[in-house]
Parts: sequence; C-alpha cells; structure tokens
Amino acid sequence: MPRYSVDLNCDMGESFGTYTLGHDAAILPFVTSANIACGFHAGDPAVMKKTVRLALAQGVAIGAHPGLPDLVGFGRREMAVLPEEAFDMVVYQIGALAAFVTAEGGAMHHVKPHGALYNLAAVNDGLAEAIAEAVYQVNPALVLYGLAGSALVRAGQQRGLRTAQEVFADRTYQPDGTLTSRRLPHALITDQQQAIDQVVRMVQHGTVRAHTGEEVAIQADTVCIHGDGDHALEFARRIREVLQSAGVQLRAGV
Amino acid sequence: MPRYSVDLNCDMGESFGTYTLGHDAAILPFVTSANIACGFHAGDPAVMKKTVRLALAQGVAIGAHPGLPDLVGFGRREMAVLPEEAFDMVVYQIGALAAFVTAEGGAMHHVKPHGALYNLAAVNDGLAEAIAEAVYQVNPALVLYGLAGSALVRAGQQRGLRTAQEVFADRTYQPDGTLTSRRLPHALITDQQQAIDQVVRMVQHGTVRAHTGEEVAIQADTVCIHGDGDHALEFARRIREVLQSAGVQLRAGV
Amino acid sequence: MPRYSVDLNCDMGESFGTYTLGHDAAILPFVTSANIACGFHAGDPAVMKKTVRLALAQGVAIGAHPGLPDLVGFGRREMAVLPEEAFDMVVYQIGALAAFVTAEGGAMHHVKPHGALYNLAAVNDGLAEAIAEAVYQVNPALVLYGLAGSALVRAGQQRGLRTAQEVFADRTYQPDGTLTSRRLPHALITDQQQAIDQVVRMVQHGTVRAHTGEEVAIQADTVCIHGDGDHALEFARRIREVLQSAGVQLRAGV
Amino acid sequence: MPRYSVDLNCDMGESFGTYTLGHDAAILPFVTSANIACGFHAGDPAVMKKTVRLALAQGVAIGAHPGLPDLVGFGRREMAVLPEEAFDMVVYQIGALAAFVTAEGGAMHHVKPHGALYNLAAVNDGLAEAIAEAVYQVNPALVLYGLAGSALVRAGQQRGLRTAQEVFADRTYQPDGTLTSRRLPHALITDQQQAIDQVVRMVQHGTVRAHTGEEVAIQADTVCIHGDGDHALEFARRIREVLQSAGVQLRAGV
Repeated sequence: MPRYSVDLNCDMGESFGTYTLGHDAAILPFVTSANIACGFHAGDPAVMKKTVRLALAQGVAIGAHPGLPDLVGFGRREMAVLPEEAFDMVVYQIGALAAFVTAEGGAMHHVKPHGALYNLAAVNDGLAEAIAEAVYQVNPALVLYGLAGSALVRAGQQRGLRTAQEVFADRTYQPDGTLTSRRLPHALITDQQQAIDQVVRMVQHGTVRAHTGEEVAIQADTVCIHGDGDHALEFARRIREVLQSAGVQLRAGV
Repeated sequence: MPRYSVDLNCDMGESFGTYTLGHDAAILPFVTSANIACGFHAGDPAVMKKTVRLALAQGVAIGAHPGLPDLVGFGRREMAVLPEEAFDMVVYQIGALAAFVTAEGGAMHHVKPHGALYNLAAVNDGLAEAIAEAVYQVNPALVLYGLAGSALVRAGQQRGLRTAQEVFADRTYQPDGTLTSRRLPHALITDQQQAIDQVVRMVQHGTVRAHTGEEVAIQADTVCIHGDGDHALEFARRIREVLQSAGVQLRAGV
Repeated sequence: MPRYSVDLNCDMGESFGTYTLGHDAAILPFVTSANIACGFHAGDPAVMKKTVRLALAQGVAIGAHPGLPDLVGFGRREMAVLPEEAFDMVVYQIGALAAFVTAEGGAMHHVKPHGALYNLAAVNDGLAEAIAEAVYQVNPALVLYGLAGSALVRAGQQRGLRTAQEVFADRTYQPDGTLTSRRLPHALITDQQQAIDQVVRMVQHGTVRAHTGEEVAIQADTVCIHGDGDHALEFARRIREVLQSAGVQLRAGV
Repeated sequence: MPRYSVDLNCDMGESFGTYTLGHDAAILPFVTSANIACGFHAGDPAVMKKTVRLALAQGVAIGAHPGLPDLVGFGRREMAVLPEEAFDMVVYQIGALAAFVTAEGGAMHHVKPHGALYNLAAVNDGLAEAIAEAVYQVNPALVLYGLAGSALVRAGQQRGLRTAQEVFADRTYQPDGTLTSRRLPHALITDQQQAIDQVVRMVQHGTVRAHTGEEVAIQADTVCIHGDGDHALEFARRIREVLQSAGVQLRAGV
C-alpha cells in the first residue's frame, strides 16, 4: 500500500553512565520519532531524562525501546526468555520511561523492542503476543513498532493496538518479504543511493524488490534511521530530502 | 496531634529472581499499605507484578519503594549520590512500578524511599527536595512517606505533596524526636508490649517518651511493620488488635 | 567402566547479598567436592569467601562454578553467547574464585559450568572447546566437570585436561546415554530408592538402564548432589551410606 | 627523597561492552604501568583480555584496578562499604584480572584502587588495612599503589607489601602534602608546563611546592598519566621526554 506520509525513527538514549554512544542531539532534527533505551540493554535514568528532554524540544514522538537485561551484550544476544518474562520486562521498561515523559510534560507515543528482543518477537508468536499484551495493558493508545510483516505486528493488530511496520534502508529483502539474514552475503545495502531508492519505492509503491529480483509487497509505516556510524547524519539528511521532494510527508502518526 | 486513624505500612516485593525474602502474602492481611521494591535494591519485574497483584487482592494501598542501585548491599549502604541522581532514580523506579499497577487496573498511592536513601533523605535537604520533586513531577497526588520530623517530610510539604510521617514500634527516640542511632545502646525496643505501648501512645496522644524520659511531640501517620523476622506476623496481629480495641481506625488515607 | 571410587559434588555458594539459598554448611559433610558460584548467576564476593572457608574446613575439593551473566534468571536461561565470550566469562570467574582459595591457603581442584552454560556446553562443540581452553589456560591442572558423554567432556579430553563425567541420580537416561529432556514425561526419578539404585549401578557397573529398558554404558566419575530441596540432606546421607556399604570409596580425585 | 627512576601509570581497560572509553593502545607506548579495570566500575571480561594483551605486547607492567560495584557511577561515588566488604571486592577483582594475565603468560605487578575506593582508602585506616590485607593474601609480591602519604600506603607498608606512592601532575598540593580538594579553587593545574615542572621537581627533589608556597616533602614513585582527554597523548609524550632528558629512568619497578 503506497503511503503519503512516513515516520523516520531512530534508536537513542543508548549512552550509559560515563559512556557516550550515538549522536542523539545531531540526529534528532532529521527524524520524526525516537526510541529511547530504558536501562536494560543501555541507558540509565540520567540519560533517559536528558533524551526525553531533547526529543520533546525537537517535537519528535517518543517511544520506549525496551531490551533484554544484558548490558554487556547491548541486548543483542538472544536469550531464552519466557513470554511472561518478556511481558514483565516490557511493562517495567515502558513504565520507567513513561515517568520521565510525564515529568517533562510530554506523552509517550510508541514502543519498539530492541535488538534480540525485536528479532525474537518478529518470529516467535508467544513472545510477540506477550509484548503486545504488555503494551496494551500499560497504555492501549501506544503504537507498537515492529518489523514489517512480523509476528510482532500481527500480535499487536490482534490485540487491538495501532502498529507501525518498520522497514530498513540498508538491508536486502527475501522473496517472502523478510530480511536477508546478516549471515548471508548480500544482506547489506552499502550503496547509499540504492538504499534511498529502496525506501522511496517501499513508501510510495508499497513494494520492495527482493534481492532475487521479485517485486514483493511491503508496508512501510516507519523507516529505521541509524544514529551512529560515520555517515548516519548525511544519510538521514538525504533520505529526508528525497522523501520530501517526492511529496511524502514526514510524521510519526500512523 | 492525636489521630483517630493510622496506616500500617510494610516493605515488600523484596524477593529477586530465584531468591525469596519476606512473607508478603502472610503479612498483607495485617497492613493497610505496601511499599513495593522497584528493582534497584531488591525486586525484579516478575516479583513486582506478583506483589502488586497480591496487594490489590487484599485492598492494600500500593506505594513505590525506590532504593539505591546496590543489589548486593540491599540498598542499605549510603552512597554519595547527587540530588539530581536521586531525582532520576526515583522517577525511574516510580514509573516502573506504576506500569504494573496500571496494568493490573489499580492506582498507586504513595512513595517511601528505602534503606540508605530513606536515611539520607531524612537529614539531607538537597536529597529530600530532589525526591519530593521527583514524586511531584511524576504524580502530584502521591503521598510521600518519610521519617516523622525528617527533612523528607518537610520537603514534601513544601513541594505541596501530602505526606505521611512514619514512626517505629521497635526503636527508641531522642529528646529531639529523632531516632536513637542503632550504634548506641538502647536503640532497639525488644519487649513487644513496650513496643506496642509506644505505638498506641504515639497514635493516640501524638507523643513519644524519649529514652531519657521526656515526653516529645511526634506525628504518627503511619507505622512501619516488619515483614520478616520470627515474630513479624505475631507482632502485626497484636498491634492491629490493640489499635482497633483502642478505637483507632486502620487505613492508608492521610 | 566400573569404578571403585566416586566423587559426590554439590553446587553451593549460591546465596547473594541479603538473600540466602541452599544449606551449604549442612550438605558439606556429605559431599566430596563443592562447585562454588562466582558472581555471575549467583554468589558475591562475601559469599564466595565464606563458602571457600566452609569447604576448606570440611576438606572438600573446591571447584569454580561459572555461569552466564544473568543473576535474575539464575543463569538458567540460554543465551546466544559466542565461544569467545564463553571463554572470557569462564576465565574471569575462575580467577575470581581462585583468589579467595589462594587467600585461604587452599588450592582449586575443578571447574563445573552452571545451568544453561553447562547445558549449552554439553551439545555445542564451539562453546565446549572455548570453555576447555579457558580452564586450560588459567590452570591446566584443573579437572573439568561435564555431563557424562557430553561435548564438554570430549573438549576437555582433547585439550589435555583431566575430566570428571557427571551423572544424575534423579534424571532418566535415553538409549544413547543422554538425559531425557525435562520437557518429556519420565524425565525425573522421584522414587528415592530407584534414584539410589541407578547411581550404584552407574558407579559399579558403568551402565545405566535407559527408561526404554536398554542397558547403556556410562562413565560415572562424579554424582550431582542437590543442596536444596526438602529431602536433599536425607538423600545425600543415604546415597553416601549405600555407596560406602557397597565398598565404593568417596573422594574427589579422578 | 629524590629518585633516579619513576613509573608512569595509566588507568585503562575502562571500556564496557559496546562502549569505548579512553585511548589505551595509543597511550600504552608512553607509560610503564597499566591499571586495568576489573568489571566493577568499568571493564568486562572481553575488555580485560584485550587490554592485558595490549599491555603485555608493550612490555608495560600490569596492575589490577579494582573499584566499587557502581558501573553507572563509574566507581566515583563514595559508598559506605565496610572494611570486610572492601577486602572481598578487592580479592575478587584481583583474581579475575590475574586469570587473564596468567592465561596470556604474563605476571601481575601491582594493584591500584580506583576512584572513590582510592579516595576512601587514602584517609580511612580500616579500609586501607582491608585492601592491603586483600592484596597481601592473594599475592604478597604485588606492589600496592596509593596516593603519596596516604593511609593506603601506610597500611601496605605495615602489612609488608612494597608500595608505590602516586603523585599527580595536574593537581595542586596543600602544605601538609595532601591534594587540594577539587571543590576548592586552585585545585587543578591547567598550565601544561607548570604541571610538568611539578612532576620533575617531585621526582628529582622529593618535594612539591604547596599552592601556598611552602616546599613540602613528597615521595614520587609513580606518576598518574591520564588516558583520555584532548591533550592526554601530548602530555604523556612531553612528560616522558622531559623526565628522560633530566636523566630519570622510566620503569615500573619500585
């Protein structure tokens, strides 16, 4: 389904204590929603407060970015958590961030799981349903962000949540609409123009060309923008320009 | 000031992972408010959910019990945290617990800092004000529990919060109304009848007899009930009976 | 292969901070080796020191019991750790415990991975080799304890370590000598006499009767003795008596 | 006491997980000893292994750099730890690092407490003695690094350890030989030449000019070199050149 607007989201607030990660203040002007770490895989109370303030000052939609309790692994290592454990850790983390948003006079907009929790919830129905249930029980008005076509998006829809299907500029897709595993060759799109073309096509035509050549339907409600790396800012600036030139409105609402 | 009602509060939800602490389910029928640990000094998301459910099922008022980030020390070791750090950790912990309360359809009633954070806030104006500000910004309807006559209670009142002044059955008091330090002899009241008499006097007459003999004014809005130890249940049962026999209503409202 | 001696090992030192777990002092007189937690899945520096002292006082062989960095999950949740990460966490934990053993004038005897790390290393060659390498590099005289017939035992042998193959009294075995998954019925042996008979047979005859009836070869160098549960002490006492009556010597050496 | 050789030490291995801190590889060629974080205030097993390798490759003396268990506060917030708790955490951390050093075929040279633990041990005899005892019990051949003239150095000497008294280039001193508190003006020396002159004088003459003008005796066994900050490398290079030009040998031995 073609869209006339799209959300650009970025993970942030992933600094911790004395450690700084990412360029939150620099990337914020280019995105429309911010997924803020909640202290499990990254972030701490001071970082959360500061990041909420930055996002509110930029008028960017704020989301919780809950992760697995694995700080040293940055929440990227899959863990055999039970659905009920996932429910509990998501409720906890949404609540922790929500308190900072409330204290700053804002309102939380969405939830996007992080790293391994995001990946597990994309394919594991039990975890996906537990996460959707957690979001719903804490605040049914929150939008659930998940990988386009994933179990998480389905679980959110079944639970009655609004969902935002996320697409990636720099990853190739399979004929079934899933991402090519990073373990395979051709998983990454390193050419910036090709990445931008892919996003524009996904947004405007609702399709993506699989790396095998087929045209596949995909719903692109929100585009993942990286906040670190050498070319992050440059890429964010360009994709924004290209989308706006193509008449696509940039906003977080779904 | 004599009171016709009083709150009996108990710390709980201090289990963690596979570790069990306290007798939450057994003590709940005897108290009117529960201070639930929030994952910093004790507690974890699963324990928090379970404890919130237990408290709601008993109709007991629920409070957040934020502590210092010191699991191995159970939040009992003083740390040189800055007021802003205290603000941040209190916001975070209130929010985390609030999400479970919301998910279960309840409403949070109060906040009582734990251990070293409670002790520091009793005498340090900067920390006390930061904690009061955190509570206020997250939810100005919350009641702030603090040591009777402490900096924390004053800070709460100045910020416009309702406060509950906490007294202890098993601790002796100084002529200035403060607790006798645990490092001194006579700090603890080990005789159960004496402990109960002290509470009744504090509630009904608004005074406590200092261990030096003077009668000192004290406001007893809430009584700390221990949830562990060999005689915890027996003591809770008796103090409840004695207070009710004396016509004192037991309830969390202030 | 029948044996004339066998080791009885027990996990211990799994308390943490204010939390107590297990009955270490009570179970120690009944076992010949102690696997002491190292602070990742359980244990803390104070508990480690105390447990090392208890074990030395009883003349029980001391082993490190390294686990995954998952305190809230007690190291029981599988995590997708890389072999190099497993190597690093095992080196770290062995070293931490070794310092307490050295400080107390003792010598470390063995290493037995805990929980999910034990289970992963039983079937994953890469992790098994990394763990064996870690043990070897820190101290090649250490004995590596692993599930009888597992990848971990093979990796230890290939690396040139002495190994101790561990068997279980209360678990049933498959015709291929592996444990019946806990997810299947008949996984557990709840009858105490049956459990003891299984151990005696494994030790004296070098075989186990699979739950399907076949007699399967198994090497029983060390028997896992549980340190908690209602009947732990009683079971330890009885298995000890039965083995000694059968002329089996109880000692940690392999 | 004038010296003909001096040690240049630098804290390192303070990265954690995905977070990078300091320029370890760049600063190593300029120093003679490295204090490596042990996972409590900073560092993790992977970082420790990597840093040990870097230091060994440079022929730099390796020391453990144990800190308080406060990752989010980077071990800089004072905590009311008991001497026995300090003993336990120092034993644990020395052991953890020692295992990596052993695995890499090296030998540990010294121990220097970090941050708030260093500061507390400089003035608190009980903590100082506990730390010295921990070092001694794990390995009496280790050198204990502490603030020049501090309780920690005295405790080490009394326990029979070799000690290295540490001085600072960029801090001013009081007439009694202690550092000027950072809370006071004139605590920091921001002029690079002045900092270098102070070090040379301390090393060659065994004195420092207090910020009030007096000449005070000080023993400068080792100079703290910062590994981060804009001018860290430049400063390390220069102080090295100046000391070598003055005929001072740079080496870790004491």
